[in-house]
Amino acid sequence: PYANEPTRHPALISISDVPCSAELPREFITDDWITPAPLWFVRNHHPVPHLNEESYRLKVHGKGFDGKEYTLDQLKKDFSKTEVTATIQCGGNRRGEFNSERKTSGNAWGFGAISNAKWGGVLLKDVLNDAGLASQKAASAAGAEHIHFEGDDGCRVSIPIDKAMSEMGDVLLAYEMNGDPIPLDHGAPVRVVVPGHVGVRNTKWLTEIEAATEDAPGVWQRGIAYKVFGPNVTKVTEEDVASTPTMQEVPVQSLIVEPRAGAVVEPGTPLDVRGFAYSGGGRGIIRVDVSADGGATWQQAKLTEGADQPRGRAWAWTFWEAEVPIPADGSTAHHTLICKATDASHNVQPDTVAGIWNLRGLANNAWHRVPIVAEVERDVA
Amino acid sequence: PYANEPTRHPALISISDVPCSAELPREFITDDWITPAPLWFVRNHHPVPHLNEESYRLKVHGKGFDGKEYTLDQLKKDFSKTEVTATIQCGGNRRGEFNSERKTSGNAWGFGAISNAKWGGVLLKDVLNDAGLASQKAASAAGAEHIHFEGDDGCRVSIPIDKAMSEMGDVLLAYEMNGDPIPLDHGAPVRVVVPGHVGVRNTKWLTEIEAATEDAPGVWQRGIAYKVFGPNVTKVTEEDVASTPTMQEVPVQSLIVEPRAGAVVEPGTPLDVRGFAYSGGGRGIIRVDVSADGGATWQQAKLTEGADQPRGRAWAWTFWEAEVPIPADGSTAHHTLICKATDASHNVQPDTVAGIWNLRGLANNAWHRVPIVAEVERDVA
Repeated sequence: PYANEPTRHPALISISDVPCSAELPREFITDDWITPAPLWFVRNHHPVPHLNEESYRLKVHGKGFDGKEYTLDQLKKDFSKTEVTATIQCGGNRRGEFNSERKTSGNAWGFGAISNAKWGGVLLKDVLNDAGLASQKAASAAGAEHIHFEGDDGCRVSIPIDKAMSEMGDVLLAYEMNGDPIPLDHGAPVRVVVPGHVGVRNTKWLTEIEAATEDAPGVWQRGIAYKVFGPNVTKVTEEDVASTPTMQEVPVQSLIVEPRAGAVVEPGTPLDVRGFAYSGGGRGIIRVDVSADGGATWQQAKLTEGADQPRGRAWAWTFWEAEVPIPADGSTAHHTLICKATDASHNVQPDTVAGIWNLRGLANNAWHRVPIVAEVERDVA
Repeated sequence: PYANEPTRHPALISISDVPCSAELPREFITDDWITPAPLWFVRNHHPVPHLNEESYRLKVHGKGFDGKEYTLDQLKKDFSKTEVTATIQCGGNRRGEFNSERKTSGNAWGFGAISNAKWGGVLLKDVLNDAGLASQKAASAAGAEHIHFEGDDGCRVSIPIDKAMSEMGDVLLAYEMNGDPIPLDHGAPVRVVVPGHVGVRNTKWLTEIEAATEDAPGVWQRGIAYKVFGPNVTKVTEEDVASTPTMQEVPVQSLIVEPRAGAVVEPGTPLDVRGFAYSGGGRGIIRVDVSADGGATWQQAKLTEGADQPRGRAWAWTFWEAEVPIPADGSTAHHTLICKATDASHNVQPDTVAGIWNLRGLANNAWHRVPIVAEVERDVA
């Protein structure tokens, strides 16, 4: 079933081939605030569907309205085009760091399961309105509290009605990525973009939208796949699964992109440190703190691209940079660089993975630590 | 000017007399999910104004509309009454814990600068609509991005327009607290309740509402009072103040109410631990983890009152309880109880105050630690 996979950029870091999971390579991350499509991280759950643009149909139906079917052409021509720049992050990003604490299940991602694009398409709420669902109030009155998405790969997920219908939610049915048609790996011809929510809710190869009373059935929504259990849960019971809410909005996050772990740097020379920060729910980044001494002292990074997004709708990551002094005391020394971000609601990252470890390895947003070596050059006698 | 202060409940823990700052005592917190008004924490910035109900006028005006004035009677009779159960927390709650790291400015609160009430009144957006401001879009078109509140004590603050005008924001002009007229200390006859935002935005003794282009002028909004600087800032420059956003939404928080710090407990007997958790922005609490071994292992608390609030509108705290085993190995031992909460966006509390320390001592939401002693009873020989 994987014979028709698209060709992929050779620089992508493969985590798994079938289905494809591949990271955006560290050295490209801060080159472009808008990630080029070929370098975008890939997280597929099944073989990539090949949908025909001509015969493509999107079925929109459910509680509270009659429903309607749309061709790709109708989506493009019957609605005004909206552009949203949104970062998407896999719930398992940074899972690998959990494994040093205790083994988790799933792919051991580094920190490249995140990318940013300018998406073009039609607002979900406009399509729902056109199909007959007037408002959140109307939906709730008809008993619809969730909007389900089904992809042609068989994945079915849902988001809460308030996010779907909100004027400020910016949920998009996208047919463009960075100004071009969406590539096969990223959901051609139409995918959902749910700004501020975890990757899996951003359904690719979208074929059906349904307004329903309950969350979507199946492992991706009600099952264990995207449930963040407590650190005490090492074996899951049915009751644990049923009582644990699935991931929607993601927590505040930041990463050091440069220098890389293990880098050898020059003592006495200010070190250029750079990275990105991001928070779910449209909560912009208000500060990034950087430490070169393992957290004993901090300095504030300069926020660059993405720093001026609108309040409550900061859907894209924020880049940052700092010049960090590295002491020159004549000896070779090991240092740990750390970054941590604060978002608009003053939520912060936890100091360690110890308290947030969870069986599925989701939502790791501990302070990012990068060990480096300040090496004194020695004359060869 | 403090000669006419109201009489206060003798159990309140006084932090400062003029102006009055007083905590809700620990031993009453979990008695009632709705805090009785006499035990509510008090945080005043000036002497308590005594407004006359008959001559009371609320002026509503600003960019984009003509404006209007309301009597108390008009607010009560011309609008439908809305009830909102909302917790209010002072930005400086738990400031005292920062001082063990490094001295901060302001009152050294314990953890009782938080309380919960059922507020009755009229929705701010209904009053703004009635006064001529139709919607957020209309406000923005007229250049109004902030709604200012002025109290008769002279405090002027503001909230962003999207919170003020949102169908889901539930911002209330309250004239009732737990079913009775609002007491003097809590803003009689009318106060603002901004659910999910820091205490200071919940203006008491409200006399004026203005739609404006900029944040409110003055120390409570643009000045240093409620700005969370970085841990590196030990002396504030004008630039620091101007570039640091002021507090609006508060981060995820949880506290152990029982047992108290230093409690002597019986080894070998399960210990009843209870407390509350709360997060800003209407993000409900999805889990509270409790540790009796300083964070090495965790168990999940049972969420009780407040656990079933609506998504995105969980404006009140959630109570929790856990039965924690205390080992009986025949010796007297010191333990540290810890609690930490996770909110609906999977934001968590930081492990320590080290990384979140800030000059004004705001937004302390580190894991709450309570030292206890497990004491073996010895026979008197």
